[in-house]
Amino acid sequence: MRYELYYWPNIQGRGEFVRLALEAAGADYADMARRPGQRGVPAMMKVLEDQRLPRPPYAPPFLKAGNTIIAQTALILHYLGPRLGLAPRDEAGRLWAHQLQLTVTDLVVHIHDTHHPVSGWLYYEEQKPAAKRRTADFWRYRMPKFFGYFERVLKNNGGKFMVGRRLSYVDLSMFQIIEGLRYAFPKRTKRFEKRVPLLVALHDRVASRPRIKAYLASERRIPFSQWGIYRYFKELDG
Amino acid sequence: MRYELYYWPNIQGRGEFVRLALEAAGADYADMARRPGQRGVPAMMKVLEDQRLPRPPYAPPFLKAGNTIIAQTALILHYLGPRLGLAPRDEAGRLWAHQLQLTVTDLVVHIHDTHHPVSGWLYYEEQKPAAKRRTADFWRYRMPKFFGYFERVLKNNGGKFMVGRRLSYVDLSMFQIIEGLRYAFPKRTKRFEKRVPLLVALHDRVASRPRIKAYLASERRIPFSQWGIYRYFKELDG
Repeated sequence: MRYELYYWPNIQGRGEFVRLALEAAGADYADMARRPGQRGVPAMMKVLEDQRLPRPPYAPPFLKAGNTIIAQTALILHYLGPRLGLAPRDEAGRLWAHQLQLTVTDLVVHIHDTHHPVSGWLYYEEQKPAAKRRTADFWRYRMPKFFGYFERVLKNNGGKFMVGRRLSYVDLSMFQIIEGLRYAFPKRTKRFEKRVPLLVALHDRVASRPRIKAYLASERRIPFSQWGIYRYFKELDG
Repeated sequence: MRYELYYWPNIQGRGEFVRLALEAAGADYADMARRPGQRGVPAMMKVLEDQRLPRPPYAPPFLKAGNTIIAQTALILHYLGPRLGLAPRDEAGRLWAHQLQLTVTDLVVHIHDTHHPVSGWLYYEEQKPAAKRRTADFWRYRMPKFFGYFERVLKNNGGKFMVGRRLSYVDLSMFQIIEGLRYAFPKRTKRFEKRVPLLVALHDRVASRPRIKAYLASERRIPFSQWGIYRYFKELDG
């Protein structure tokens, strides 16, 4: 099966959780909106604006697999998981992986909103005091709770994988969360990592997997930037 | 099967999407944290703080069904859907309902953040200018996009149900979203409703279903208040 991923071509964003799964599995896929000209973003917008699609995606990322179109990052991963060998085979295990990914999804909103709490239609500079306050609360309350939870889940599962006995998309997502936090909050993340040694070791193991290593070194991996979930602002990295 | 729902006892919140499904199906369930004394919230906290649970919930709501514990509102509904006759029977239809519910979940975050954009640990009064700005953007950009999408989905499905040919938990959630917006933004919602006639008619049909009607009139339905997703502030309802 050749998968078609549709996501913004210039950012890692939410699409990156799907890209990592496709890459880790060595799947046959195309990153559709990165194609040149009309075949890129305009083709993606055409799908989004199609008024007659019976099951339309609300927003990118979405995946085409044959005639099936699936949106919502966590749902795309839930769908791909067993097909790519990146989820437990039993139903209860699959739902548990999905539940963890939905909690990752919640965390991603909180990470994004550290720099844009008031409005996505204002520049960061126009909401700096609010961003500072939101960031302080994020590191004081949200991070310990989310990461304490994920560290506990990892520990109770034996310390090597988030779910089951082999790599899953949840492990890849934990890698991406830590990687992004290191970019956006290098100082804060460095200090914080001492509290979650198992997750940091998981991050490192994921990064050193041959397919992931090759992907990260390739042009297919879009660099972090000031447009996306993770953005670096010195004053927020207090 | 007797279901045990765990959620904060004094607010509708995210738990209400699950309560509505259980009520609409006439399911046998207990709203566990509303039990008196130690059997209420303390018993719920005990589950959340249990360090040895292999598949722990991150936060309420969560559902116990026999030995299974499931968290994340949309996932609880995905699990309950076929069991309560509130989701399509085929796999593709079930996933489509789940995808819509995940988009409802995203909308709920935006609704909540209109009154608490900066921090959940500050009073509304301490973030009023940010709340005003976020609310303005919510009604200018988010509402037309989310509700335009849901109205389109409803229309393309024949206008009567969001998915399939009978009531699903997605219909119940659309009812709850509109009901909450009417509480939090009575003037704005009234004006806006003219643009989404099919969704408003769906809301009314859900409200008039005998089991839902009986539930809404009962003490099991917790009233809207200033603690929850939907809160009324006159100055935000401009």
